[in-house]
Amino acid sequence: MAEPQKPAQVKHKKNRLEAFSDGVFAIAITLLVLEIAVPAVEEIRSSGDALRGIGHEWPVYLAYFISFMTIGAVWIEHSALVDALDHIDGVFMRLNLVLLLFAAFLPFPTRMMSEWKGVTEAERVAVVFYGIVLLMMVLMLILLGRHAEREGLFGEDIADERKEEARVKYQLMPSLIAYVVAALVGFFVPQIGISIYLIIAIWLAIPLRDVRRLFGRSA
Amino acid sequence: MAEPQKPAQVKHKKNRLEAFSDGVFAIAITLLVLEIAVPAVEEIRSSGDALRGIGHEWPVYLAYFISFMTIGAVWIEHSALVDALDHIDGVFMRLNLVLLLFAAFLPFPTRMMSEWKGVTEAERVAVVFYGIVLLMMVLMLILLGRHAEREGLFGEDIADERKEEARVKYQLMPSLIAYVVAALVGFFVPQIGISIYLIIAIWLAIPLRDVRRLFGRSA
Amino acid sequence: MAEPQKPAQVKHKKNRLEAFSDGVFAIAITLLVLEIAVPAVEEIRSSGDALRGIGHEWPVYLAYFISFMTIGAVWIEHSALVDALDHIDGVFMRLNLVLLLFAAFLPFPTRMMSEWKGVTEAERVAVVFYGIVLLMMVLMLILLGRHAEREGLFGEDIADERKEEARVKYQLMPSLIAYVVAALVGFFVPQIGISIYLIIAIWLAIPLRDVRRLFGRSA
Amino acid sequence: MAEPQKPAQVKHKKNRLEAFSDGVFAIAITLLVLEIAVPAVEEIRSSGDALRGIGHEWPVYLAYFISFMTIGAVWIEHSALVDALDHIDGVFMRLNLVLLLFAAFLPFPTRMMSEWKGVTEAERVAVVFYGIVLLMMVLMLILLGRHAEREGLFGEDIADERKEEARVKYQLMPSLIAYVVAALVGFFVPQIGISIYLIIAIWLAIPLRDVRRLFGRSA
Repeated sequence: MAEPQKPAQVKHKKNRLEAFSDGVFAIAITLLVLEIAVPAVEEIRSSGDALRGIGHEWPVYLAYFISFMTIGAVWIEHSALVDALDHIDGVFMRLNLVLLLFAAFLPFPTRMMSEWKGVTEAERVAVVFYGIVLLMMVLMLILLGRHAEREGLFGEDIADERKEEARVKYQLMPSLIAYVVAALVGFFVPQIGISIYLIIAIWLAIPLRDVRRLFGRSA
Repeated sequence: MAEPQKPAQVKHKKNRLEAFSDGVFAIAITLLVLEIAVPAVEEIRSSGDALRGIGHEWPVYLAYFISFMTIGAVWIEHSALVDALDHIDGVFMRLNLVLLLFAAFLPFPTRMMSEWKGVTEAERVAVVFYGIVLLMMVLMLILLGRHAEREGLFGEDIADERKEEARVKYQLMPSLIAYVVAALVGFFVPQIGISIYLIIAIWLAIPLRDVRRLFGRSA
Repeated sequence: MAEPQKPAQVKHKKNRLEAFSDGVFAIAITLLVLEIAVPAVEEIRSSGDALRGIGHEWPVYLAYFISFMTIGAVWIEHSALVDALDHIDGVFMRLNLVLLLFAAFLPFPTRMMSEWKGVTEAERVAVVFYGIVLLMMVLMLILLGRHAEREGLFGEDIADERKEEARVKYQLMPSLIAYVVAALVGFFVPQIGISIYLIIAIWLAIPLRDVRRLFGRSA
Repeated sequence: MAEPQKPAQVKHKKNRLEAFSDGVFAIAITLLVLEIAVPAVEEIRSSGDALRGIGHEWPVYLAYFISFMTIGAVWIEHSALVDALDHIDGVFMRLNLVLLLFAAFLPFPTRMMSEWKGVTEAERVAVVFYGIVLLMMVLMLILLGRHAEREGLFGEDIADERKEEARVKYQLMPSLIAYVVAALVGFFVPQIGISIYLIIAIWLAIPLRDVRRLFGRSA
């Protein structure tokens, strides 16, 4: 509460940024479920098969799963990054707001992708649009890390953690390139684009830091 | 903030996992209400009885109540588990994310069960589907506890609490089996399946630890 | 973290109960806005008056305002109560869950009341139903306070605050009776019932503790 | 926990007000996305152009962006204000509740503005209505700051921060006047009104404190 004031910088405490970000991530990830429509009773009755009714919805479940895992992974990285910081500045808060803008927006392209599934031309556009939003989330995360490093927002005593943080970019950076590839390929063959999004989501969710430690590369 | 770093493990602080989980549980539990439709005015007018209009919706209220109590009970157990931990690791965060995936998904089978009520074949599928999601939540909770025990994430000074935690599994484990039974029975007689879900929700919500203490088995 | 364990009672920390409750209250209060429908463009076009279109929605705005203020007031009392506690027990967590059940459910009768407005018989039922949910929230709040007092959950050093808390019941208790009156009257004359709900919401929102101090009755 | 009690004032801790406010702001900002409708598949099919389908929705995206940035900026200011406080009183909690009332209400006029776009007379009303809600948010923020200053809620050790806070009003005050101008102009030329809302949102989001420091006017 009585933190020293450096003359050239306004320091902000992290707790409310964390609380607000956790809120937005948690809501965005939970709102996704509202996009999944229950097959109408009439539909079930005419086809006489409820299981097929559920099965027919698989692109919706897939889109739900990809969006959920991607937001989840971005939240984990966000949490690791902010955890390693000593304090934040006003620019960090604004960059963070832009990250949240894309996270909160994700339910829209998710819905679009599952609604336009099967409509050739529309599907292409949806897959690219969806990829751009995913890409923007990861991009903003990288920018937040860059800004924190440039402005010296990291804590002094967590130098190791900080380097660790830098190494994390090896996980984020390739996914950035993979998103561009997926969006480009997805414009021509939507199914492959979506498959790559799925792979990236799983890749981002791997606890790479723990895995590296397991194989003896401890800091 | 200046916590000691063990070489072979990345420690994470619990506070953001708690905040994010609380957020998802709170939102999932509150979104359930959106699934309850107000009977249309025309319907009320033609039947001339608003009370019957509300009463007719009882399966929806029941599904709402079961889902609310189950998420509530899972949240209470989750909160007791994480409370007893000293720190968490990356795997715990990912397992937790899968638990949240099912909690956030619950409004969907809840809606399905109340919309397909009365449509013989569809109802069966909905009751089984709903049971599987409930079962997965409890399963993930047990896996989280197992992982925490195996990796020594519990605090040293709360050894008693930890054993207490182990004992809690006596509450979770039977419900796991009960879910399997309920889903199987529910496929043939949906009403009985739903009744068992209701009983499990109430069973999970019993403050068993406090009850045990009351009867003199203090630690 | 290393709190002493009494033999006959399981103590729980308050922070996650606070976080979860804040989440549910915040979501319930914010979801209310989804119940307000924008008048259709065709409607506006035919009547040629958008202002009247908005004005025509006044019962919806009123229901929104009453629900918002009531949840807000309940949150303030909840926050004051839990703030005065030293710790909580398992029963408190379950009672709290029931309070949250009604708070999370409130958007439903709110929608019902604004949709059934003007349909004589249905309106009566909606007004009574709405009042019962409001009453249950306040009742659960009183039960929580009672339980805390009986089980000695209040902090030792905040004896004054605790008495203060008891005095708060003078604010909650009359509103309980007023809800019963409002629901009864509302069954015959809905408009008066709703007016009383509005008055109770405003009454509950008065910072009575501060007002009492102003007039010199300091503790 | 054992904070000293002044006789003439009830002190409240800030943490739950922060948590509740963060929750409401986070939910309001995330619910906005539900207002954006995905263009129907039939529409896309008939026009044969999905990109145009998305592009046609630009007023919706613009309204989403303005609302998101305005709530975001209000949250940042709210967070800076409460951060500088030592404690809060009952009146502060109620004023804060009114601020949250308008923040939680914002998704409604946002939806109205994007749905009534292009319908001459209705559009005018929507633009003015939307502006009034934005204005009320900023007004409540200023009132909160005023109340805190008058009642001496600021911490003693953060006198500089406090003055800083006062200076912030130079950012809020002009936006208040700009909202009145925008609403008035917007009644006659909606497009210009909306453009001014956009400019205010960007203006509010500028990290003015950091910018001032950059140019050497450190405290």
